Amino acid sequence: MSSTIPGKHLIIDFWEAENLTDIKLIESALSDAAKACGANILNIDLHEFGEGFGVTGVAVLAESHISIHTWPENSYAALDVFMCGSCDPNNAIEPLKKVFKPNKSDIRELNRGDNG
Amino acid sequence: MSSTIPGKHLIIDFWEAENLTDIKLIESALSDAAKACGANILNIDLHEFGEGFGVTGVAVLAESHISIHTWPENSYAALDVFMCGSCDPNNAIEPLKKVFKPNKSDIRELNRGDNG
Repeated sequence: MSSTIPGKHLIIDFWEAENLTDIKLIESALSDAAKACGANILNIDLHEFGEGFGVTGVAVLAESHISIHTWPENSYAALDVFMCGSCDPNNAIEPLKKVFKPNKSDIRELNRGDNG
Repeated sequence: MSSTIPGKHLIIDFWEAENLTDIKLIESALSDAAKACGANILNIDLHEFGEGFGVTGVAVLAESHISIHTWPENSYAALDVFMCGSCDPNNAIEPLKKVFKPNKSDIRELNRGDNG
């Protein structure tokens, strides 16, 4: 509808990653990633599936969201970082890599809302 | 790391859409979309920004998430539907279209976690 809606959406895959079961550390990682982008956190909602299993959840931001879903049995985490406004989601990457230490990662950047 | 992690991620843009400010209706739409996929809802967390403004939030699922961010001033909504396991996120599309009635939509399907 309008080119005036700025939205960048990063689709992030981390393989051979660490710290995929520690919900407190994951909460801290999402918080640090949001702050690195200058985003405002409305809520962080994470869920565990039991000892040794993954964590799933999201940081809901005034500027959109950061989600995470982890599969520790595969050393894999799927994240996405969607930011609108003046926030650049690319600033979230280093804080996330610092915590999850992936040996391999894939990051796809999508534009949202700019071709209606 | 493994081709055994099934994950499909739909990136959904709706333009010329309706019902972008009604938080109760949006909650119901996310719930219906999750159920249409056979997904289990852990929590739905939505936030409003005031009368006439957009809604932002997410349904956190045992099978990943559905997020929504609306810009009623542009009649635009950005959604994503990420599902792992046996759930097919494509089943979420019709329940979402039924509520938001977009005249124009763009849906991109991404595979997650299958090329590590």
